[in-house]
Amino acid sequence: DYIVEESWRWAIAFFIGLTMGFLSFLVDIGLEHLNNFKFSTVKKVISSHGGFWAPYFTFIAICLSLTGISGCLTSYGSPLAAGSGIPEIKTYLNGVHIKGLLGLKTLVCKLTGVTCSMSGGLIAGKEGPFVHSGGIVGGGWAGMGSNTLQALFGKWYTFKTPRNVGGFFRNDADHRDFVSIGTAAGVSTAFAAPIGGLLLAMEEGSSFYSTGVYWRGFLSTCTGVLTLHFLASLAGSPSLIFEEKFGIRRDLGLYDDDIALYGSKYYYFIWELPVFVILGIIAGCLGALFIKLHVKFTAFRGQYIPPRLVNRRLCEVLFVAWLTATTFFVITYASPCQKLPPKEQLAYYEMDSADGDIFAGVGGEDKRGLKHFPRLWCKDGEYNRNGQLFFTPLIQAMRMIIHFGETMPGDMDPKANLGQPLLLLWAVVIFTLMQFTFGIGAATGIFMPSLAVGGAWGRIVGMIVQAALHSAGSDLRVSLPAYTVVGAAAMLGGVTRMTLSITVLAMEGTGSLQMIIPIMLAVFISKVVGDSMTYSIYDVQIKIRGAPVLLEASLESHQRMVADKLTVSELATTQLVAVPPVMPVRELVETLQRCGHQAFPVTPDVAKAYTSDETFPLHGVIKRITLLHLLKHKLGFFSHPPGTPFPSSKTHVPKDQKARYALLAKLEQFPLKIRIKEDQDGIFRDLTTGDLEQMIDLRPFMQRTPFIVHGNASLARAYRLFRTMGLHHMYVGPAKPQVVGVITRKDVTEENAELVLGMKANQTGSRSF
Amino acid sequence: DYIVEESWRWAIAFFIGLTMGFLSFLVDIGLEHLNNFKFSTVKKVISSHGGFWAPYFTFIAICLSLTGISGCLTSYGSPLAAGSGIPEIKTYLNGVHIKGLLGLKTLVCKLTGVTCSMSGGLIAGKEGPFVHSGGIVGGGWAGMGSNTLQALFGKWYTFKTPRNVGGFFRNDADHRDFVSIGTAAGVSTAFAAPIGGLLLAMEEGSSFYSTGVYWRGFLSTCTGVLTLHFLASLAGSPSLIFEEKFGIRRDLGLYDDDIALYGSKYYYFIWELPVFVILGIIAGCLGALFIKLHVKFTAFRGQYIPPRLVNRRLCEVLFVAWLTATTFFVITYASPCQKLPPKEQLAYYEMDSADGDIFAGVGGEDKRGLKHFPRLWCKDGEYNRNGQLFFTPLIQAMRMIIHFGETMPGDMDPKANLGQPLLLLWAVVIFTLMQFTFGIGAATGIFMPSLAVGGAWGRIVGMIVQAALHSAGSDLRVSLPAYTVVGAAAMLGGVTRMTLSITVLAMEGTGSLQMIIPIMLAVFISKVVGDSMTYSIYDVQIKIRGAPVLLEASLESHQRMVADKLTVSELATTQLVAVPPVMPVRELVETLQRCGHQAFPVTPDVAKAYTSDETFPLHGVIKRITLLHLLKHKLGFFSHPPGTPFPSSKTHVPKDQKARYALLAKLEQFPLKIRIKEDQDGIFRDLTTGDLEQMIDLRPFMQRTPFIVHGNASLARAYRLFRTMGLHHMYVGPAKPQVVGVITRKDVTEENAELVLGMKANQTGSRSF
Repeated sequence: DYIVEESWRWAIAFFIGLTMGFLSFLVDIGLEHLNNFKFSTVKKVISSHGGFWAPYFTFIAICLSLTGISGCLTSYGSPLAAGSGIPEIKTYLNGVHIKGLLGLKTLVCKLTGVTCSMSGGLIAGKEGPFVHSGGIVGGGWAGMGSNTLQALFGKWYTFKTPRNVGGFFRNDADHRDFVSIGTAAGVSTAFAAPIGGLLLAMEEGSSFYSTGVYWRGFLSTCTGVLTLHFLASLAGSPSLIFEEKFGIRRDLGLYDDDIALYGSKYYYFIWELPVFVILGIIAGCLGALFIKLHVKFTAFRGQYIPPRLVNRRLCEVLFVAWLTATTFFVITYASPCQKLPPKEQLAYYEMDSADGDIFAGVGGEDKRGLKHFPRLWCKDGEYNRNGQLFFTPLIQAMRMIIHFGETMPGDMDPKANLGQPLLLLWAVVIFTLMQFTFGIGAATGIFMPSLAVGGAWGRIVGMIVQAALHSAGSDLRVSLPAYTVVGAAAMLGGVTRMTLSITVLAMEGTGSLQMIIPIMLAVFISKVVGDSMTYSIYDVQIKIRGAPVLLEASLESHQRMVADKLTVSELATTQLVAVPPVMPVRELVETLQRCGHQAFPVTPDVAKAYTSDETFPLHGVIKRITLLHLLKHKLGFFSHPPGTPFPSSKTHVPKDQKARYALLAKLEQFPLKIRIKEDQDGIFRDLTTGDLEQMIDLRPFMQRTPFIVHGNASLARAYRLFRTMGLHHMYVGPAKPQVVGVITRKDVTEENAELVLGMKANQTGSRSF
Repeated sequence: DYIVEESWRWAIAFFIGLTMGFLSFLVDIGLEHLNNFKFSTVKKVISSHGGFWAPYFTFIAICLSLTGISGCLTSYGSPLAAGSGIPEIKTYLNGVHIKGLLGLKTLVCKLTGVTCSMSGGLIAGKEGPFVHSGGIVGGGWAGMGSNTLQALFGKWYTFKTPRNVGGFFRNDADHRDFVSIGTAAGVSTAFAAPIGGLLLAMEEGSSFYSTGVYWRGFLSTCTGVLTLHFLASLAGSPSLIFEEKFGIRRDLGLYDDDIALYGSKYYYFIWELPVFVILGIIAGCLGALFIKLHVKFTAFRGQYIPPRLVNRRLCEVLFVAWLTATTFFVITYASPCQKLPPKEQLAYYEMDSADGDIFAGVGGEDKRGLKHFPRLWCKDGEYNRNGQLFFTPLIQAMRMIIHFGETMPGDMDPKANLGQPLLLLWAVVIFTLMQFTFGIGAATGIFMPSLAVGGAWGRIVGMIVQAALHSAGSDLRVSLPAYTVVGAAAMLGGVTRMTLSITVLAMEGTGSLQMIIPIMLAVFISKVVGDSMTYSIYDVQIKIRGAPVLLEASLESHQRMVADKLTVSELATTQLVAVPPVMPVRELVETLQRCGHQAFPVTPDVAKAYTSDETFPLHGVIKRITLLHLLKHKLGFFSHPPGTPFPSSKTHVPKDQKARYALLAKLEQFPLKIRIKEDQDGIFRDLTTGDLEQMIDLRPFMQRTPFIVHGNASLARAYRLFRTMGLHHMYVGPAKPQVVGVITRKDVTEENAELVLGMKANQTGSRSF
């Protein structure tokens, strides 16, 4: 059974990767088609009608309808599909569940929503939503079932597999592990970056305490990325699938690895390190500024556009979409026309070994066959300069900023570099618009916008350094792509305050293996600077919502100061509502109705437990949800004529394995069979007076060994236990607890355990049981 | 104080990186000079004398003297400097300390030893020794002191900084964190791979439970690699240091990133994935074979060459060195001479933008200026074919296998590829010799030999696939470097059973960003296949030594089967030697002499504690080492006329901060001030009769809140607590423990804690304390 279970763990990790790869492919395909439709329609209108208004209205109409869909899905579909979903997943992984967060409906709304948001031109990325979606997929596979489907089609089919087909992982801890793996797979497929995605899940979720889980996560991320690439290749050129080179695509690469000479394009000089530190400082400040403004915006939204007024929320989405589309369109229209570079250079700029750019959704090629030089209103032989960035999807613009012109041979100086004014305009516009966008009622992510802003000003700094060098008489050439990547990563670090994962994501996404150390330096500085001013964007959102999340596995210094001064008993609640091991059903129902506690200690001394400061013997603990299950299925009920002794607790558990599994299945909580708030009263009503007269035996169903913490232990200790063991509550022992013995490290080694087990078996044998 | 402490944490992580970068540079420089000396001397003898014997004796003499130094350092210097040191570090990070493991003497012996072993031609790598060295450096910086120096120069200077200059981290947990960071820095600098090194420390050490620690580790690895590169560049061309491109060196790169077109050299086809699975299976089997043979060898060694017979051990080292050197020399001598490739190809083979290859120690250029085509006994225009691999340092041979010919433009077909027979010979010879080498009394690592074997047969498989394709009429070209890297990583995985870290190390070391997924797949399969047959090489060594190490953070399935069936109380010791809170000094000394326990529970009911199965109130726990400190410094002593009440425990602790720090410094264990076995009797002898008549108060010095585990809890729970909290022992409570209250997740959030602290402060204030 254990080995089967272990195999299922691996299998499920594999399936999670497969599913996420497939979903990511669907979103990419959707994005490509919608973007193609949008840009090619507008281009047609430009070439047929010209002028400002006709193309403008076409553009606006498409953008507004797409974002409208996204807004509707959030407002009328699943409100949890709004935003990035990372704070919610973080909250969940911390042990605080939000209803509907991991539902299939949310998944559908989120993915459709983000596809529409992005193709509708909102300043949004798919990374955050993919983290959330990955979590849902992970949870769904772990539970091997779905509430939504059950509710819809439950009449015809049970969407819940039995135990022997993988239904092992319906307990909290396992479920959380798989959600964590799912988030890793999600972000990996979004970025096509297996290592970075895994590290991100580790850094944010931090429930990867065991090597097994994180290695399963790696299997999952690799499977996901491979599936995505495979499907993308299959869609691109199905007949050539076996001749297609794999592993050479970068999500943030304008060209693939086969022709982009990353090795020689990315490098840094030792004297540039201080410059990267400055980049980090700027990024930290900008990140903090963004977060501070976001808090203000959120307060404003909370007042005028609260989530429950769904129509207002939708209007806000449409307004932001209109604002974004208009800004982009006007900037493109106002652009000067520039001459195309000479033909031999053009060949290098446009180089791409892949046929269709499946990841981009570039929006239809120019009729001259030029992907990166949009003509639009310009005459032949010229191109619309601003359109290179503003009349293309956000991610494609980002790729242009990083890589444009990178395939030029070293001695062919690219003059047609994206200029500083254009980059500056871009950075300011995106920074402003992302402020409006993040937090509206549509699925949006913050990764890609942050990267786009950071990349732009990073490159500007690089150009300034280059100019300074030049004017100082040096002919050293700095690497502009390097500055772009460092700036982008630092900006993302300033906003999200993730560290290692961002460094690796930036490296994997752009293929800049050479830049690991400068990226790490800039992200590090950015985090330090940012942390000194604000919390991360996600933690700010969590705090605004007020969920009891323990953010860090170990406390930060200023928290430790508090935690060391307090003991557990100073924080503990000493007046408990306890239940006796055997009690009349009526009393149990009354207790459940009287208070809202989620778990009840089981003790014969119920009165003592309620009295403050007195110790009582703890027999076990039982959750409200278990009690409701017992009442619903009338488990553990027995009639008890007064005066006779209670029967042994063993009479209430079945003797053979199969019946025991059936009982276990009844008590299983996942997929959510009983919703405490909704179903409780119904269960109570269903109890007949006869039932209420009976007794109930809680002993076989309670958890017998709840965690106990020393009353004098410091808060820091309690914190660590809560965090690493994923607990919801712990019982507090007295200052000088009673103990019977000691167990040492040697006692729990495998050899000793097997020895003792052997002795135990022999003893049992000799006693002829 | 907390903020100062936090800053010191970062500073120390930085210093660890700096130190490891510097040490790594020293080793590299040493290796280069020694290798240069060895190979150029032999080359000179060949060109001046020719023939077999004169060059042979020169070669043997140099090899034997170098390995002799390494053997002497282990045999007569520090026995812990033998082998890789990874098992010992793993044991330490698990909480089991080995005396002298982290001493400065061991560091010096290890690093000098590994330099001599490698330049002496032993089949050894520096990665394992660098893990160990990193641990020592990390521990040294954490303790900010050294016992060795203290013992040598203690008369003139105290090698231990006070608390305000960073001496914060002398407790077990912090020390372990820094050792862990040190190992990460060590392996990173050895491989020049910052991410891979960090992941390796996480995977093996697994004490990275907090994001803070692993982010500090990343700072450390990046600093280390940067320092190494900086120093290497400085040594190479000091005047050009500001014009030198950084970040483009790979430790396993024959050419640097600037000219090696990795992006276009590494790729895979989707149909190759099954081939990589087969590679993984072969690697798993070979790894398991290696480990099984190693167990046999170790048993043989244990019988005939035990570590205490140092002279025999030294002889074994010399024998293995002679065997290795002779094999290599004979193979080189017996090699056929081959024609040099035409000049235009030669230019591509020999291409290198760096002047001297600081990382390699290639051994002096050929007088024709050819680095990769040794002439030796051949006539002009020809080269010694076997010498390309066998007459060069191991790591350089490895680089040749992976990258040789990689800089050739795609249309210039390299015929001068290293041939299959040569590669096969290489794989067999190295595999056999590494079997002899691993486990001898010299500093040796297993990483590089494993990579060298795996790379060779990986490439052979690639060639077979290419031939099969060709004969099937396809003109598809598979990527041979890809096969080499996958084979190497899989073989390393089969031996060490590390996973994620090896994948990333292989990727970073070779620059094969494109190959992440195939490498992961092969390493995964290799681990699964290998694990089904044997433990990893390190775990085998740990098991042979019998240290009580808890290898995995969570149990494997077969272990869980055992762990779920046993409860803590079945494993616990119930007869304890306890001490009362206040006792006569004489009694304490007698107790310490009577038993060998390392920790004593403090309770007034000493008798009850000794009796099995009775509960007793636990006031705290005190370690033997603390008791010895108290006795040595006569702390907590007081005379007590019979009949009077005991004074409050507060009279024994100083009131002001400064005196308390002084007391704390007296009790601090690191650097090891008292060695239990050696110093105990001396401390007892120093006590006068008057002292023995006094009473001692243990209350201020005991740890008041030891971990307590529920007696009925399963072994699995105990295991997890031991592992994640890094405990040595836990006290076992009764089956139905007394509790006073409950603490929930909400109670420990920062907001609530601050609230309670505020209330507490107010209360105290109003009571006018």
